[in-house]
Amino acid sequence: MAPKSNAGRPEWTTALTSVEPNRILVRGYAIDELMGRVAFGDAIYLLLTGELPPPSISRLVAAMLTGFIDHGVAPAALMARQSARAGGSLPGSVAAGLLSLDRQHAGGVVACRHMLERGLDLAGSSMLLASAATELVEELVQADRIPPPGFGQQVHTTDPRVSRLLQMALELEVDALYSQCLRAIETALSRHPALEDEVLPINVDGAIAAVCGDLGLSAGVAEALLIISRVPGLVAHAMEEQAHLDPARGPSAHRYTGPSERRLRDRR
Amino acid sequence: MAPKSNAGRPEWTTALTSVEPNRILVRGYAIDELMGRVAFGDAIYLLLTGELPPPSISRLVAAMLTGFIDHGVAPAALMARQSARAGGSLPGSVAAGLLSLDRQHAGGVVACRHMLERGLDLAGSSMLLASAATELVEELVQADRIPPPGFGQQVHTTDPRVSRLLQMALELEVDALYSQCLRAIETALSRHPALEDEVLPINVDGAIAAVCGDLGLSAGVAEALLIISRVPGLVAHAMEEQAHLDPARGPSAHRYTGPSERRLRDRR
Amino acid sequence: MAPKSNAGRPEWTTALTSVEPNRILVRGYAIDELMGRVAFGDAIYLLLTGELPPPSISRLVAAMLTGFIDHGVAPAALMARQSARAGGSLPGSVAAGLLSLDRQHAGGVVACRHMLERGLDLAGSSMLLASAATELVEELVQADRIPPPGFGQQVHTTDPRVSRLLQMALELEVDALYSQCLRAIETALSRHPALEDEVLPINVDGAIAAVCGDLGLSAGVAEALLIISRVPGLVAHAMEEQAHLDPARGPSAHRYTGPSERRLRDRR
Amino acid sequence: MAPKSNAGRPEWTTALTSVEPNRILVRGYAIDELMGRVAFGDAIYLLLTGELPPPSISRLVAAMLTGFIDHGVAPAALMARQSARAGGSLPGSVAAGLLSLDRQHAGGVVACRHMLERGLDLAGSSMLLASAATELVEELVQADRIPPPGFGQQVHTTDPRVSRLLQMALELEVDALYSQCLRAIETALSRHPALEDEVLPINVDGAIAAVCGDLGLSAGVAEALLIISRVPGLVAHAMEEQAHLDPARGPSAHRYTGPSERRLRDRR
Repeated sequence: MAPKSNAGRPEWTTALTSVEPNRILVRGYAIDELMGRVAFGDAIYLLLTGELPPPSISRLVAAMLTGFIDHGVAPAALMARQSARAGGSLPGSVAAGLLSLDRQHAGGVVACRHMLERGLDLAGSSMLLASAATELVEELVQADRIPPPGFGQQVHTTDPRVSRLLQMALELEVDALYSQCLRAIETALSRHPALEDEVLPINVDGAIAAVCGDLGLSAGVAEALLIISRVPGLVAHAMEEQAHLDPARGPSAHRYTGPSERRLRDRR
Repeated sequence: MAPKSNAGRPEWTTALTSVEPNRILVRGYAIDELMGRVAFGDAIYLLLTGELPPPSISRLVAAMLTGFIDHGVAPAALMARQSARAGGSLPGSVAAGLLSLDRQHAGGVVACRHMLERGLDLAGSSMLLASAATELVEELVQADRIPPPGFGQQVHTTDPRVSRLLQMALELEVDALYSQCLRAIETALSRHPALEDEVLPINVDGAIAAVCGDLGLSAGVAEALLIISRVPGLVAHAMEEQAHLDPARGPSAHRYTGPSERRLRDRR
Repeated sequence: MAPKSNAGRPEWTTALTSVEPNRILVRGYAIDELMGRVAFGDAIYLLLTGELPPPSISRLVAAMLTGFIDHGVAPAALMARQSARAGGSLPGSVAAGLLSLDRQHAGGVVACRHMLERGLDLAGSSMLLASAATELVEELVQADRIPPPGFGQQVHTTDPRVSRLLQMALELEVDALYSQCLRAIETALSRHPALEDEVLPINVDGAIAAVCGDLGLSAGVAEALLIISRVPGLVAHAMEEQAHLDPARGPSAHRYTGPSERRLRDRR
Repeated sequence: MAPKSNAGRPEWTTALTSVEPNRILVRGYAIDELMGRVAFGDAIYLLLTGELPPPSISRLVAAMLTGFIDHGVAPAALMARQSARAGGSLPGSVAAGLLSLDRQHAGGVVACRHMLERGLDLAGSSMLLASAATELVEELVQADRIPPPGFGQQVHTTDPRVSRLLQMALELEVDALYSQCLRAIETALSRHPALEDEVLPINVDGAIAAVCGDLGLSAGVAEALLIISRVPGLVAHAMEEQAHLDPARGPSAHRYTGPSERRLRDRR
């Protein structure tokens, strides 16, 4: 608890960034060489995994980071806003928002990954995913674990981010076992007699868990990408709140006043 | 303090993201249209400012976000590691790191921006930046505000991130009044007789403050970019710590064990 | 930013607690001698100020700490609950709650203390508090600083905690200049023609600021007592949430189901 | 994730504090009746458990809260100091400190409680604690869980807080099965042949876990008391740092400059 000195303590190591006077190497690359030459998403991938991504992975990682950048006035955004409204600093407000991401998101990715691995184990060498998924769903129903991690969404019946990400994985040919297992579980859930009245679409956690699995990324990296992707949204909500501090207003009734729908192709 | 109901409370508004069943618009763009089509850095810019950036700004924003992604075992990284070592969750550890960014960084950007505006005011319509900077530095010395915000660095005498960012701004022709004012102050600092023995290079806060000023971005957006850019580093440090938990080790003696220097052009 | 070694860095000092093998001294007192012999409130006072309190101060400090222990489902409590609901740890949930205390409370104490000092300055050696308060309120109205720090409450028109604390200060004869100035401002606010329709009772921040002023405690110690007093409430809210996790429930509509009113004297 | 309205959401309940205009009931007691009549420790116990404590429990709870109020420059204190040094607010700095308490403390209490319950299960109706503890320690050694939760301390070989708390429990006759089991495990650890060279004293987590077990308090309440007891120390460290901001100083080399040892009986 109260270290008195470092004498005799083992030195520890880091493999992320080497900092020497006037020279900074991130995973071996000079930071000034990276600046302006790699996308932020690629730099994130480099820092987390140790290597720059090949082009198809680069696109998928950028899609994940962009896709989960904000989801409106979700609980974590409300926390960041509340902290900003109370006069908190910008970093403090983002910290407050992160403290409500914990299990019910970041953790959902990890839990879904484990479930997909269980499904793939059940399929075994035969790779009959449909029957493995049926067996897995039966287990989940028996264990009262409905909705399973990676499934269920309060607002959407088909989450557009999920559809787009899985479609991109298919087009880029990284739609492999994890994604197929996820879809097999979705089908098995929709067919289970005890779940007739449930709407259990794949959610964002599930899509990230599966695509990262197929990319060979660890569950930890998947969780990391989700956390990183949510931070710009928390920052933006805290800033919007700072710009319109109104301590008398109610905590949750709100209205969207931004631009109405527009298309990328209409930009000049 | 303890709202009993929302009745009679004014509704509040947000212009960031509209969420309706199966449709998510970020600043008016459908999220699934953005995914795979815009870089993460551009999506961040869109969320913070309301518009997608033109190409030259896009490159500068990506360079800022990439450049400040990690700076080794800085205080905020140590905080994230300490929290992870104590068993904290990944979001909780990042929150801990953010709580040590507060003034001495995020705030440095804002303070430097104000100082640059003061310098530009002093220059007035004559735009004689050199003499305005000399006057400003004299004020700072008299007010015992040395190092000024945006200057001074414990490790580097010439920060490679700063050099690269200002060079890019010059090449992309966004090197305008704020950047010129920053450099004029650097020169004036180096020439002030009372500061002969000081080494006061432009630091990261200063470079971001000036370039964002020249891009027409508010001080708040500059601070936001700095915070966002630091998060992947905090995540990576917390994850590295989680992978090698060793409660007996000392708190700060460490060694870099990652790859030695390599070049982007050597990738295949 | 990235300290490479401690060599040459000045050693720093702490005057709080000395820890040596098998011996812990808090402000000079052996911790095992304090345990069971001083109240928790007195130990807090010792840690913050360096000395144990005399009996009358001890009672007032305990009253402040007890009085502000919880105020139902206030924003900070909701933040702690939200974090717990998302699966956050108990310390993480309390941290989330603290991040919404910032200015709009902790800071209120400090701001009110400054205002009281301004009022006492205006009164000067004459100590005509009534006219000084009238002048101060006129300044506040002109500067559009209504409600002033330490005044205004969304739920109560007479906050029972404030009445009790100021009454105790009077009985214990520590009702001196700061408290008298606070009451003079209250009177002046009620008489100002522009504030006829406003109800501006003294709030908790104001009462703590004034009583701590009269006790000779710094504004920092007053803020510290307020923060410490709120933590048990944040812990209790987070625990209650952990015990009844229900992700589907709404964010703010709630009902009190605890015991109805009872009296201390009815305990056996 | 993004609740659009509360319509149809189940109302939720709280049993902690009822807040109505001009009336605040904490667990049924009017707050102004509690103020000045109950100690802060008792108010904490009331809030956490629903009832005021009888006198012997009141003394033990105060001893726990006082005993763990500060342990010098431990990791959590360093985190709070680091955040304060970076310019963080007082609540933000305390939040940073709490984020490094997580598992390696708060969690230690809960884990130790489970271990004690396992020990009591092994003893069963025979209540032969010595042989149950021997069996339990053998299990722990086989599972490579040494040090077990509640044992092991980096600074002390006999922690004075632990000795005092267990001694008080004995004197107040609440030294029952949990405390006895804890001591039996301590003995079994000292006799296990594979642990000859280890010094594994009972630590603070263990003492709180056992005494709270004997008081009939849940593991959650024990964890809550530990968290609450540490907050004044975090506040005091952050304040000390704010008073002596020195960004150039090293991160951990420090010296105690407070009063030397003094005794309670010498106060006048």
